[in-house]
Parts: sequence; structure tokens; C-alpha cells
Amino acid sequence: MEALQKLIVTKGRILDGDILKVDSFLNHQIDTAFLPEIGKEFKRRFADCEVNKILTIEASGIAIGCATSQFFNYCPVVFAKKGNARNIGNDTYHVTEHSYTRNADITVSVSRQYLSKDDKVLILDDFLANGEALNALISIARQAGCQIAGCGIVIEKAYQQGGDRIREQGIRVESLARIKSMSTESGIEFCQ
Amino acid sequence: MEALQKLIVTKGRILDGDILKVDSFLNHQIDTAFLPEIGKEFKRRFADCEVNKILTIEASGIAIGCATSQFFNYCPVVFAKKGNARNIGNDTYHVTEHSYTRNADITVSVSRQYLSKDDKVLILDDFLANGEALNALISIARQAGCQIAGCGIVIEKAYQQGGDRIREQGIRVESLARIKSMSTESGIEFCQ
Repeated sequence: MEALQKLIVTKGRILDGDILKVDSFLNHQIDTAFLPEIGKEFKRRFADCEVNKILTIEASGIAIGCATSQFFNYCPVVFAKKGNARNIGNDTYHVTEHSYTRNADITVSVSRQYLSKDDKVLILDDFLANGEALNALISIARQAGCQIAGCGIVIEKAYQQGGDRIREQGIRVESLARIKSMSTESGIEFCQ
Repeated sequence: MEALQKLIVTKGRILDGDILKVDSFLNHQIDTAFLPEIGKEFKRRFADCEVNKILTIEASGIAIGCATSQFFNYCPVVFAKKGNARNIGNDTYHVTEHSYTRNADITVSVSRQYLSKDDKVLILDDFLANGEALNALISIARQAGCQIAGCGIVIEKAYQQGGDRIREQGIRVESLARIKSMSTESGIEFCQ
């Protein structure tokens, strides 16, 4: 998705520690004029999938999920909660994953009320690198007996292993920008 | 806002401990078809305010902020981060408030890059009860030198003091549903 690549190059910042900051338009300040373009592209890629629910994760996935839902007949967006999510009660699907980014275990939960075997879910997130968040969402969707239409990612660090490991399970992963390499010296190279 | 009151009565659940759960449409599962109605109503109420930025707080404020932005010329939405937000760096406006809900101190931060004295902000959130989150956002907007157009709240527990204390400071607070009283026995009574 060329417009997205352009935005990443012009507005993203590469920091030490393999960090790509896109918080000027995606995950702290949100460019709500651009976000529907992302949703439209996910629709194009998953047009044939009869998605009836979007599953994502707080916080950065929420805006992406909502902007995409309108292209899937305004299907409900369910966002998983991170950490000790007392406010959703105990009746949850949940999983604990180790986060390499945070160097800590993190529990991800969804109330059982909002996912079921009748759901065909599109799983969305902003970033895919090691894949912890996406693995957690896939696990939760499986616990609920959902069909998984696939995973839609805004930015994949394709040089990390998360995406490949999920594709090897036979799950479709569509990333709108796939980064082949990235450094403060040479900038960003995208996969063709 | 009658449609919202109806949704709260039909889909909300009152739990012990003065808890109103609206997670079937607002803050865990999101009704993306209804959310623009909320945005439209905020626009109607703040139409004269020349808002050029929406300030909200993760996680539940994000969907509301994005759904509202389209009615304010797709102005940027900035969401404050809670807790130890390492991923936005150290150059932040931040404030620590005591959360009665969580019975803990909570730090709320926004990167200095995304708020300035040129901004006229509409501050949005899902709930207003004691007002900790809203106070934190107001404090951050003031630190940044923003003009505050006002605060838009989806559901205010008007029997708690948060809203009144903020209005007493001369800040305009518009709540789309104002709950006068609420109990598991008698249900919900809205302010007229």
C-alpha cells in the first residue's frame, strides 16, 4: 500500500533499539482522514471472507478496527484487554504471552459474551514483529471456536519471525506495509 | 440524547458496586454503526467552537474520539496513555491522579509533540464519575497551553461530583446521557 509506505517514510522515525515510531499518525496521534484508507485496503484483501466481527487489542488496534468495520457492514469491533482487566469480569477467554518488547508476561482477555463459534473474525493490529499480540488474539479466537478469516496488520517487520510463524500455521496474514530492513543509517527498505 | 439513553437501558447492565457495564456497545465490544451518532451530537453541541484537535484517553476514548473527529474536519485525535508509558519517551506532559475506581495512583501522559498552544481541544471520554481521567486531561491540555473548547462525555454519573467540580472551574462539560440515580433494584433514572 503505497500511500502507507510514503507516510511511514515521511512521518515515521527510526529510533535505537529497532523502534519505528509512527505515533504522529497511527498510535498516539491518529490521522483519522487516512485511517479509512487502511480499512478500505483490508476490505479489498479480505473481500471474499464474510467477516462478521473484528477482533483487535487495546489501545492501538481500536482506531484501526473501527475504521475498518465500516467496510464490513459496520460489524462489531471487539478489543481485547491487556493486563489485569478486572473490569471485564472473570468469565473471559484469556492467554498469557511473554512480551519481548516489554520483557514481561502479559495477559490478554476478552469477555466470553463477545466471541462465539458463530463468528468469523478478522483479527487486526497495528504492528507485527515477534507476534505476541497476534498469537494471543489467535489463541482467544480459537478458544471461542471462532472461524479466523485472517489477520490484517498495518506494519509488519518482515525481518522478524512473528509473521512467518503464523503463516506456517495456515493462517492468512495480510500486512499493508512489510519492512524488509530498517536502520537509523539507511532508513527503511520495504519488501516488494 | 434519546437513542443513547435507550441503548443504555436496553443493553447496559447494573452491577453491584455502582457499576454500569456498557461493554456490549461502548467499551469492549464497539457498535461502530452507532458511534457516529455520538460524534454527530458532540458536533451539534460544540459546533461553534473551532475545535482543531480531539484529546482523549486510552482505551475507551479512542473509538469515541475517532468517530467524532470526522464531524470536526477529520481533526487529529490524540489519546493520552495511562501508566508507565515508556513507548512515548520522556518528553511528555503528564499528571498523576488518584483513581478511586482502581484505588491506585495513575499517571497519564501525552507526548509534547502533539499538543501546543495553537490547539483548541475538545476533550472526550466515555464516562465521567469522580472525574479523575477528565481532570488529568484538562491538566495536560493546560500544561500544553491549549485552549479548551470543552469536554464531551458519553455517560455522566451526575450523582457523583466530578462533573460539577469541573463545571465550577468554568469549563463547559456536555454529557450525552446524565444519570440521576441508578440501582440494581430500580434501574436507571436519567436527568431531564
